[in-house]
Amino acid sequence: MFSRRNFLRASAVSMVGAGLVSNASVASIPEAPTQTSPTMVAPVLPGAGRPYNPVATLNGWTLPWRMRDGWKEFHLVAEPVIREFAPGMVANLWGYNGQSPGPTIECVEGDKIRIFVTNKLPEHTTVHWHGILLPNGMDGVGGLTQPHIPVGKTYVYEMVMKKSGTFMYHPHADEMVQMAMGMMGFFVVHPKDPRQHAVDRDFVFLLNAFDIEPGAKTPKNSTMLDFNLWSWNSRVFPAIDPLVVRKGDRVRIRVGNLTMTNHPVHLHGYDFEVTGTDGGWVPPTARWPEVSADIPVGAMRAIEFTADEPGDWAIHCHKSHHTMNAMGHGVPTMIGVDHRDVVHKIIQVAPDYMVMGERGMADMQEMEMPIPDNTLPMMTGRGPFGPLEMGGMFSVVKVREGLARGDYKDPGWYKHPPGTVAYEWKG
Amino acid sequence: MFSRRNFLRASAVSMVGAGLVSNASVASIPEAPTQTSPTMVAPVLPGAGRPYNPVATLNGWTLPWRMRDGWKEFHLVAEPVIREFAPGMVANLWGYNGQSPGPTIECVEGDKIRIFVTNKLPEHTTVHWHGILLPNGMDGVGGLTQPHIPVGKTYVYEMVMKKSGTFMYHPHADEMVQMAMGMMGFFVVHPKDPRQHAVDRDFVFLLNAFDIEPGAKTPKNSTMLDFNLWSWNSRVFPAIDPLVVRKGDRVRIRVGNLTMTNHPVHLHGYDFEVTGTDGGWVPPTARWPEVSADIPVGAMRAIEFTADEPGDWAIHCHKSHHTMNAMGHGVPTMIGVDHRDVVHKIIQVAPDYMVMGERGMADMQEMEMPIPDNTLPMMTGRGPFGPLEMGGMFSVVKVREGLARGDYKDPGWYKHPPGTVAYEWKG
Amino acid sequence: MFSRRNFLRASAVSMVGAGLVSNASVASIPEAPTQTSPTMVAPVLPGAGRPYNPVATLNGWTLPWRMRDGWKEFHLVAEPVIREFAPGMVANLWGYNGQSPGPTIECVEGDKIRIFVTNKLPEHTTVHWHGILLPNGMDGVGGLTQPHIPVGKTYVYEMVMKKSGTFMYHPHADEMVQMAMGMMGFFVVHPKDPRQHAVDRDFVFLLNAFDIEPGAKTPKNSTMLDFNLWSWNSRVFPAIDPLVVRKGDRVRIRVGNLTMTNHPVHLHGYDFEVTGTDGGWVPPTARWPEVSADIPVGAMRAIEFTADEPGDWAIHCHKSHHTMNAMGHGVPTMIGVDHRDVVHKIIQVAPDYMVMGERGMADMQEMEMPIPDNTLPMMTGRGPFGPLEMGGMFSVVKVREGLARGDYKDPGWYKHPPGTVAYEWKG
Repeated sequence: MFSRRNFLRASAVSMVGAGLVSNASVASIPEAPTQTSPTMVAPVLPGAGRPYNPVATLNGWTLPWRMRDGWKEFHLVAEPVIREFAPGMVANLWGYNGQSPGPTIECVEGDKIRIFVTNKLPEHTTVHWHGILLPNGMDGVGGLTQPHIPVGKTYVYEMVMKKSGTFMYHPHADEMVQMAMGMMGFFVVHPKDPRQHAVDRDFVFLLNAFDIEPGAKTPKNSTMLDFNLWSWNSRVFPAIDPLVVRKGDRVRIRVGNLTMTNHPVHLHGYDFEVTGTDGGWVPPTARWPEVSADIPVGAMRAIEFTADEPGDWAIHCHKSHHTMNAMGHGVPTMIGVDHRDVVHKIIQVAPDYMVMGERGMADMQEMEMPIPDNTLPMMTGRGPFGPLEMGGMFSVVKVREGLARGDYKDPGWYKHPPGTVAYEWKG
Repeated sequence: MFSRRNFLRASAVSMVGAGLVSNASVASIPEAPTQTSPTMVAPVLPGAGRPYNPVATLNGWTLPWRMRDGWKEFHLVAEPVIREFAPGMVANLWGYNGQSPGPTIECVEGDKIRIFVTNKLPEHTTVHWHGILLPNGMDGVGGLTQPHIPVGKTYVYEMVMKKSGTFMYHPHADEMVQMAMGMMGFFVVHPKDPRQHAVDRDFVFLLNAFDIEPGAKTPKNSTMLDFNLWSWNSRVFPAIDPLVVRKGDRVRIRVGNLTMTNHPVHLHGYDFEVTGTDGGWVPPTARWPEVSADIPVGAMRAIEFTADEPGDWAIHCHKSHHTMNAMGHGVPTMIGVDHRDVVHKIIQVAPDYMVMGERGMADMQEMEMPIPDNTLPMMTGRGPFGPLEMGGMFSVVKVREGLARGDYKDPGWYKHPPGTVAYEWKG
Repeated sequence: MFSRRNFLRASAVSMVGAGLVSNASVASIPEAPTQTSPTMVAPVLPGAGRPYNPVATLNGWTLPWRMRDGWKEFHLVAEPVIREFAPGMVANLWGYNGQSPGPTIECVEGDKIRIFVTNKLPEHTTVHWHGILLPNGMDGVGGLTQPHIPVGKTYVYEMVMKKSGTFMYHPHADEMVQMAMGMMGFFVVHPKDPRQHAVDRDFVFLLNAFDIEPGAKTPKNSTMLDFNLWSWNSRVFPAIDPLVVRKGDRVRIRVGNLTMTNHPVHLHGYDFEVTGTDGGWVPPTARWPEVSADIPVGAMRAIEFTADEPGDWAIHCHKSHHTMNAMGHGVPTMIGVDHRDVVHKIIQVAPDYMVMGERGMADMQEMEMPIPDNTLPMMTGRGPFGPLEMGGMFSVVKVREGLARGDYKDPGWYKHPPGTVAYEWKG
């Protein structure tokens, strides 16, 4: 699953900065595993250190670490990556260790953490540890709390985890550009006592957004509003992993937002409570019952519910444009214009002519329409009862009976758990 | 008020789907009342079933039902409608039972509900019951939990109301288009004990938004951001019903948001608490005092206050563009440019020439300016002290002494309650 | 600091309106101090009336008052002003008493307040006292609760402060235009008992936004979304005052939003609680721990934390476009396009040719690029470790040891407190 590439061979690697470990040498840098697949890697139980209940990262993975003299050592590599948004479309992004978003970092309250960050981007960068209480020099704001990490160099961050919670990491250097290119990741600190805040299933994902013209592969990085790919962990429906749980499970879903607008994440079939933010755990007296958690930009919300009603429950951003893919933006309104006769004539001479929408757009799901290379149809996905007519920020919580706890160790059940109807999203 | 049209004559009516009542026949489908007026219909006290305190729907009405073998039966008809946004402007929308939004559905916790949905649109549809706890097959997600309802067919949803609260209904099929066209409605489930959560006045409305070019009548349905009609229940100021209450009343206002951005609903003269969401009732320990309730997309907020201060209290979205009508978008800035002399010469040869704004835009309220047919001026409305210079998402909570509880049964008082200054919004 | 201009000479001054004090004459109008500097004026301890702990207004000041027969009398003058957004850029705005935003008004729960408002704008106006409980006739909604204040006239508002809290003032007349031009201010009502809600440092600022084309000086006033200057109190980084506090201080930051979108104000290094809104104080049971306070439009959030960790902690809006200045909008994406060779040739014939971004935009910070007069670079500011690459809604909470309480009386320490590294933001 991971490819182990040896950083020691890379002559460009050296270490700089205030965070430099005094007796560190090139030979002491831990390996930097990399990931090429956009499919969820099953959660990894900790092999060393304090025990915890690992999270499952939608279409992602967790960064392995090594223990060294009582410190957990991680190695992030900032670098250009290729990310598949869905079968049929890839993009040139910037990320960490082969993917955008980067791998989830997991550790435990009280842990001593050392993170090596190697910069393989074409420009300088830093990493800010969003929400974590740490010494000022470790805060990662380029120019303010540290020099930028030059191209080809490695910087070392050290911190002791003061509290449990759900945090994020992203650059604080040329920030608008680097985040628009996909540089971000989750950072989960588990409670020292694994019974605290324990749930049965614990999912994490980031809301992100890109502006990639149909046919292009590189995001425009000065877009403020008109994004056309609204994604979860740099994936769009129908390629976002489902969230599979057992009937009766206590479920937590932690969602961070690094786009440029609020996203109300709406869950069907259940009401839930927000039990945590990137600032900590919400006390029970302060919780609201909700069905749509409005996730502000630069914030995280953890929602919890008990999965007592079996079925396929949609979970999606409730801004209806955000459940459309790129081709849904800028489509002219044809409702009320009946031009079917004209169209049949046009098609005889121009077979690629696209006609749609005079009776709504549901027809598009049934038609085979030519679209540019490397883009995605506006609406897509096929469920057990026909086309889903969705895209973007949409997935399904699959609540199943007959799943044994042991099944959780098999990554296969994430995609096709026992009891799942054997349908595919692809139309 | 209602026109009773006989569906039995419509040869296209037949029933399909998983929700089909096995022994139902065409003859057993309840009537589908329709409404042509955009003025509030006074709340209807329940004639049968459990007692409850009905809500008042701004510029709307409540769907009658029939009892049949212990089930409350409703009939929604999805269809093209014509909606007056304000005198002087109508639009071709899609809605339910003659209007957009559709009628409010009211029932009681514990009720067994059966809803017949007939599709008279030019394309397939479904209905999703936003926030309601129900079996997966009744969730209304086309393709995922049911087949779409084809044109001309009727689908039957059945559910037992597990809890009280404020919910919404809208399509989950070609969703971006169908919601952009106005398909949505409120769904209120009253507590089994009518003393629970009881208030004196209980208003409901939906925030929606449309992009209709001045002079046109059909919304553009792929707009993501640049809407030009920001409306409450598909109405804009000065045509939104006022919210009339007695001095001393406990007042609840329930607001749902089905636009594409947050709307901070600001009430003058009072602070209030959010007491409910579409996920349930907010416990008292968790409530905040507020004067602007930020309503996320795909969410509902119920606010409550005691109307102890008489007067005309503005209530509006605090995004100042959302209290403008279509003509307010894209107006060039002329502040600092004094072109009055030039203008007088231009007007001699081109009498329709519009000049405005070099000293601000307040002049526009006083001028008679030609605007395209079927559109609304940017700012309008006249109050007791002059022009209000508002549009869009704006109304007034009128707190009046001297209203008797009995007056509530007269729909007239909603518009002109005893004690109301006899002014009109129209300029 | 203040210039005392004598209104009595201005022949245009006279008083009108429902709020007119019956025995008032022109001679009885209090002075209207004016402010020309955009730098923070140190908080003023109250010389008369009930004692309170004053607030510090970022890049602003507090309006002096006079006591007269048991009433605190203030005088606001609505007028065109020139505001420096940052060295190198000024704008023609509308504001109060020489500045935009207007001065902060401070008083105490129980106070009797009289506010004279003189209109020196080219069009009519009113003042709405956002969040304050008052008689309907004092609410300031032009046309609805009062006649507009004509050009050259003075209107008098009177109210008794029913409760403590954080409020705002702004026009409710030609509102979209007048707020887009910068008319707004803070209004803080302190608790009657100064030990209630007491903190050591109490900062206030307003979020506002402008659309001023590079090279122009007057905001476009019909912009709904595409603002290019995202500002705090009409200032942008690197010209926003830092928030300087002692180690161990209890700190409150009150932020109001009068833009057209939510702003998540993110503080590094700390988690905090929202302890107040413009509706009142949030009870402890209802508070959430947070690191990003999402401030809705037309709302205020007061956040509180204990400054126990020294350092320079960034505080900023987390929408990454909002920490860019005007030149960052609409920049084409050049990542992956290596055109350095071509550029060198172009520059020989066109020395002003701007090339940037093919390896990200961090280079821009290091280059000297020509930009239009009266605009600001996209990213700017230099900290102790190099360029900050920020703009817009960004500042720094400087937590310092070695500050004595007495130092607070010296306005100089706000900019350069003892213990501050002697760096400047300017690159």
